[in-house]
Amino acid sequence: MDLTAVSAMRHFGSEDFLSMDKRFRTQLINSMPGIKSVNLVGTKSEDGFENLAIFNSVFHVGANPPFLGLVIRPDSVDRHTWENIQKTGVYSLNQVPTDYAAAAHQTSARYDKEQSEFKEVGFTAECKDGFFAPTVGESIVSVGLKYEEHYRVKANNTLVVIGRIEHLWIQERLIAEDGFVDLSQGNVLSCIGLDAYCTSSLINRFAYAKPDLPAREI
Amino acid sequence: MDLTAVSAMRHFGSEDFLSMDKRFRTQLINSMPGIKSVNLVGTKSEDGFENLAIFNSVFHVGANPPFLGLVIRPDSVDRHTWENIQKTGVYSLNQVPTDYAAAAHQTSARYDKEQSEFKEVGFTAECKDGFFAPTVGESIVSVGLKYEEHYRVKANNTLVVIGRIEHLWIQERLIAEDGFVDLSQGNVLSCIGLDAYCTSSLINRFAYAKPDLPAREI
Repeated sequence: MDLTAVSAMRHFGSEDFLSMDKRFRTQLINSMPGIKSVNLVGTKSEDGFENLAIFNSVFHVGANPPFLGLVIRPDSVDRHTWENIQKTGVYSLNQVPTDYAAAAHQTSARYDKEQSEFKEVGFTAECKDGFFAPTVGESIVSVGLKYEEHYRVKANNTLVVIGRIEHLWIQERLIAEDGFVDLSQGNVLSCIGLDAYCTSSLINRFAYAKPDLPAREI
Repeated sequence: MDLTAVSAMRHFGSEDFLSMDKRFRTQLINSMPGIKSVNLVGTKSEDGFENLAIFNSVFHVGANPPFLGLVIRPDSVDRHTWENIQKTGVYSLNQVPTDYAAAAHQTSARYDKEQSEFKEVGFTAECKDGFFAPTVGESIVSVGLKYEEHYRVKANNTLVVIGRIEHLWIQERLIAEDGFVDLSQGNVLSCIGLDAYCTSSLINRFAYAKPDLPAREI
């Protein structure tokens, strides 16, 4: 086996990005930064139209009080999501099992505002604990968030939205005694880039790392 | 089999977050938002001290020009990372195979500034194509970024850093003809929350979604 060939690295520099085929660049830049979460964002307009759109850019902002971030591209098909968040102040995040990969991907299609992606792709819209934004009935985790603040990236107008967690619904069986949520036991869907979907398996957990001790599994 | 029990959901509301045990809340809020990427951020101080720290918050900002976002917690042990980025303007992101889970986790220990996490945990520091920030020799993907702008989340002082991609090094064999990078073929490490590490398998890719067509595998 030629190990050099297996591990041979290809280099791209600034000049290469400029001259690259547009579709090749889009795939490359979107898929290389790592395995990503898949969250379906549920919203409802003031006049009652439900919306559901797939996002792979949810990030942790804080645990106390609990905040999450969400990135919305300026040229996004998810314009209804941001319109509804601005008008109603609330949105839900929903994680589904891998069985729903095709349905989750299909929410990225450019449906009209009057069309509910829930109905079009086959998810159950639920109204939980009086929260205004619809959640996905098939989820293993749903989060109810209230808009807190947003930031426009100057470089290209991308939107970073920060929300405060008001509700959290999690499959009871996934929650460990110490609060850890084993999403892999729920067959949670994850992704690479714009169109590739993955399943994940837990390898192990490690104790809090200290400089004078080697990594210890827990 | 009692399907109700399997899918029973537990609800947490705003009041619950306030009264919850601190460690339980930290685990819960960090682990529930989805499978996350693992990126080791490599930097070097002006006086030549190398630093390597684990992050699970890299997000896509744009492909043309190519930008990535990185979230740094205000109370983070990764203060050296932000200090070095501010002073030198550059940093690297590095993704490693699952074999290196223990070493990747160990970079989160609070080492002194004079200690190189590369040496302490056993990664090879490389200087590639004249880029100032060190990269990880064991990586399947490394990215060289230049600081572009940053934003402080008002709610809790969390830092969002935007960088422009100047270099990209990827294992040649992982790059498909259309630019897609199949990280799963490189056994890329991913994570849940603060201390759990995962391996990922590709299920399938789907064609660009259109409202009038069902999801199609490619």
